[in-house]
Amino acid sequence: VMLASGKPVLVPTIEEDGFALDIEAVKKAVTPRTKAIMYCSPNNPTGTVFTEEQLRGIAEIALEHDLVVITDEAYEYFTFDGHKHFSIASIPEMGKNAVSCFTFTKTYAMTGWRIGYLCAHQDLIPQINKAHIPLSICAPVVSQYAALAALKGSQDCVSRFRQKYLSARNLMCERLDDLSSVFDYKKPGGSYLMFPRILLEEGKDSKTFCENLLKEAKVSATPGVDFGPTGQRHLRLSFCVPDEMINKAFDRMEVYFKKYL
Amino acid sequence: VMLASGKPVLVPTIEEDGFALDIEAVKKAVTPRTKAIMYCSPNNPTGTVFTEEQLRGIAEIALEHDLVVITDEAYEYFTFDGHKHFSIASIPEMGKNAVSCFTFTKTYAMTGWRIGYLCAHQDLIPQINKAHIPLSICAPVVSQYAALAALKGSQDCVSRFRQKYLSARNLMCERLDDLSSVFDYKKPGGSYLMFPRILLEEGKDSKTFCENLLKEAKVSATPGVDFGPTGQRHLRLSFCVPDEMINKAFDRMEVYFKKYL
Repeated sequence: VMLASGKPVLVPTIEEDGFALDIEAVKKAVTPRTKAIMYCSPNNPTGTVFTEEQLRGIAEIALEHDLVVITDEAYEYFTFDGHKHFSIASIPEMGKNAVSCFTFTKTYAMTGWRIGYLCAHQDLIPQINKAHIPLSICAPVVSQYAALAALKGSQDCVSRFRQKYLSARNLMCERLDDLSSVFDYKKPGGSYLMFPRILLEEGKDSKTFCENLLKEAKVSATPGVDFGPTGQRHLRLSFCVPDEMINKAFDRMEVYFKKYL
Repeated sequence: VMLASGKPVLVPTIEEDGFALDIEAVKKAVTPRTKAIMYCSPNNPTGTVFTEEQLRGIAEIALEHDLVVITDEAYEYFTFDGHKHFSIASIPEMGKNAVSCFTFTKTYAMTGWRIGYLCAHQDLIPQINKAHIPLSICAPVVSQYAALAALKGSQDCVSRFRQKYLSARNLMCERLDDLSSVFDYKKPGGSYLMFPRILLEEGKDSKTFCENLLKEAKVSATPGVDFGPTGQRHLRLSFCVPDEMINKAFDRMEVYFKKYL
């Protein structure tokens, strides 16, 4: 946003409500200078799946003020417990206003192949290309062929990945329950990420907290503050790893935090 | 440059002198607001190899005004007829001022793998990463392995490619000589590109000229104006193709331009 000489205005989500969208706060944040609303659902870093009802609220705001809505729907296929992914571009009136971004990285576990795609009105594409061509020229050709193979091949892997992430999420929550004096968490409804709150005093500086966790407990996590000021006191955990690694990380944290347990 | 809220100031090269750098013009273009000088040598689109003497002139200007010099040296290994590639970063005083950019695309014919590297003072790297990480995250992992294989493997391919481009350049020049009423050209000292001047009246709009060439003669070339306003009346030709394709393209052009021959 800043590269394009824009001013990003951050609207916090409602943590008590599982990091839900705060539609009223979005409404209040819109000014005559607002050009676009960006969001990510299923959300990185919280794992929240924004509801259809809430996203219809975003669409209403966008249409009222003629704003573009730019979405990151990378985790669209990974939702749990009946949470359903909803694409704002599926609202017919949003045809000219939605820029929906997708990636192969998550759906097909193709991290590092650096290939994705977007869906937008044909009038917007030449404008998007103005940035795309100088910055990227093209997606790597080898990755385009890999993506083609992923699309044409059996799609069973996608539901297998979802099953795997669901059971990994359940394991994460069980193990976090045993650290309930250290972390409070909201169960993520999608993605393979979650965003626990750090209950300890040290949590007020999530960067140092994560550095110490890495150096002393040998557990890697992303400081919450990297996702904005209201992310402070949190850390992002990924469960896109084998169960053994999750167990190993929590075994280490149980030792590291034992004086609090 | 514009994405970074900068104002690009273009300094034309001297066509009569084989598109040589115009050091005096560069000097005149520097103002107190100038931050950096960017150039490409061996040059895209002209194929000119800037001389060591000229580049030492650029270094002097840069050091006098404490400017960063950003270089594109993608074609460093492809020089002909005794032209020698010179890296401005090899001047010890330029250690803090040079950002030298290289790619695997040309050296190892790895077009489409989207991987390159740059060399700069360690103090500049964190600043460069500020743009690199949000825009690219990383070079494709598969391409990193491919690049590693290229670096570790036999380097014979590089001189084989150079030989191939040299003979292709010679063929291009021979065939262009037969179209001397249509094109005037400077023999490129490097790269696999050249930038002939269009002598015909239609050349004043190089975009339409190239569109017609593509549609009617089925020959693809890049309009000179894409490289800046002084590129108008030119077209960029690439000889990174088999000899048969070069001959086929010129056979077609001889038919297409026959009324001028």
